[in-house]
Amino acid sequence: MSTIPEGVLRSSLQEAMADVAREIDAAFEAELQLPDDPSARLYEAMRHAAVGGGKRLRPLLTCTAADLFGVPRSQSLRAGLAVECIHVHSLIHDDLPCMDDDALRRGKPTVHVAFDEATAVLAGDALLALSFQILSAAPTHPSAEVRAHLVTELARASGAWGMAGGQMLDLFAAPDEHDLKAITRLQRLKTGALIGWCLDAGAILGEASGDVRTHLRGYGQKLGLAFQIADDLLDVCGEEAAVGKRLQKDAEQGKATFVSLLGVERARQQADLLIEQAVEHLRPFGSRGSLLAELAEFVIARDR
Amino acid sequence: MSTIPEGVLRSSLQEAMADVAREIDAAFEAELQLPDDPSARLYEAMRHAAVGGGKRLRPLLTCTAADLFGVPRSQSLRAGLAVECIHVHSLIHDDLPCMDDDALRRGKPTVHVAFDEATAVLAGDALLALSFQILSAAPTHPSAEVRAHLVTELARASGAWGMAGGQMLDLFAAPDEHDLKAITRLQRLKTGALIGWCLDAGAILGEASGDVRTHLRGYGQKLGLAFQIADDLLDVCGEEAAVGKRLQKDAEQGKATFVSLLGVERARQQADLLIEQAVEHLRPFGSRGSLLAELAEFVIARDR
Repeated sequence: MSTIPEGVLRSSLQEAMADVAREIDAAFEAELQLPDDPSARLYEAMRHAAVGGGKRLRPLLTCTAADLFGVPRSQSLRAGLAVECIHVHSLIHDDLPCMDDDALRRGKPTVHVAFDEATAVLAGDALLALSFQILSAAPTHPSAEVRAHLVTELARASGAWGMAGGQMLDLFAAPDEHDLKAITRLQRLKTGALIGWCLDAGAILGEASGDVRTHLRGYGQKLGLAFQIADDLLDVCGEEAAVGKRLQKDAEQGKATFVSLLGVERARQQADLLIEQAVEHLRPFGSRGSLLAELAEFVIARDR
Repeated sequence: MSTIPEGVLRSSLQEAMADVAREIDAAFEAELQLPDDPSARLYEAMRHAAVGGGKRLRPLLTCTAADLFGVPRSQSLRAGLAVECIHVHSLIHDDLPCMDDDALRRGKPTVHVAFDEATAVLAGDALLALSFQILSAAPTHPSAEVRAHLVTELARASGAWGMAGGQMLDLFAAPDEHDLKAITRLQRLKTGALIGWCLDAGAILGEASGDVRTHLRGYGQKLGLAFQIADDLLDVCGEEAAVGKRLQKDAEQGKATFVSLLGVERARQQADLLIEQAVEHLRPFGSRGSLLAELAEFVIARDR
């Protein structure tokens, strides 16, 4: 994969993760200043969900992909912030009592528990709108063509043809429609579309050629599926305190997952295979792809 | 205001309304084709809320404002469709049990009644995303600069600084914060921001001068407030069957409104005054502004 020794990579990935986490927190702090009226409650709810939590995997993917093309950090970080807004939006809404009914997220009470359901619905809505505002306004000026393109793709990835459609499949597909093919399709929409966007955003910001975009898309698609298998494995084998959310719930709800269909051992092998395939797509980038390769390894090795 | 006789105007407004309603329905039909899998339920819910209902006031405002500058219909209609997506999104979420808990909308069961709450949350989310997809992709090609600008302004108008913030104020402002000034601010956000966007979108699509934009904004601001007063009057004096939603609910919930603060008679006078002021802003457009003037009169005379 790369000639750089593993210790160095590990530490550069850790550094990159810490950098992005710090930058995203600072950006959310700046975007979500509390107004001096009762709508402050809405901003508090958005901050509760958005500031200081999570792995920031999507912004990290966005920035790391954009780095391949020397995109200025100010631009890739705005795109990363936009996709993180959508991700946090989806967590708030998915946690609602009418959806997955979760009380714990990132080790904190979920928004509808800490505030109330109406505030959670509105905070999710407002983060979705904020995402497109951030992406289209971009004070750091990628061209308007690039901004409009990013908005189109992100809207598609988060709407009925992407994340929202995938969540619908997850909630309403009949048990007999839960074979491996159906689960793969579901997860491509539910988590894969947004992860795919991160890589694609890097390529769009970098005005990469069609060939290069195809490779990054391929990496993103394999990574997205491996990420979901890792998530399913965590749901079965993880420590609730480390993961920061309720576990074992797929089994409780009788939901088919990669793990219930394949078993723990074959699911792990499948995730490993997907990561190998993802890394294969990085070959054209040579050693410049090493951080994305490390990220892929991290995605299946994480314990939260 | 205009030298065209009233009968002619009335019929041209009716014609314009019927045209836009038909075009918006056709566009929603085309956008929301049912897929052949369990996510079809999501599209059905979106169609239930979006197709065949409502006055389509916002697309009509958008197209009529854009007509002032000779903007091609294909462009203004896409912008009108985008803002109608946001409007329908807000109706679905506002009707949820955790918000206004309404069972009837546009004479039909609300989405969470006809389907379920999870589907209603997702259908609203998907319509919000669809709005930005429609606006940024725009196959009919206004410049990317214009598309990105429209997205920025619409995201602002629908998010925490606009509609979502206004709904938050409506739900959580303490009764002693419900004086006329507070209600005006609330309604500027909750309904005014989106109505203002429609006029602004016409100006942006038409690449109008700053002066002209200011006048259209002024018209939109006055119109938005008059529209809300008319809505409050309908809530008190309207016929439930004609309006197609539950009425008298502001009083039931002890909510302050323009009508509860001013009384029916003074509220009517205030609405008339606002419409006069709105029409005043159309003066620079001469007779070309006559349809917007008629529209303003319609907004306070409607019975639904």
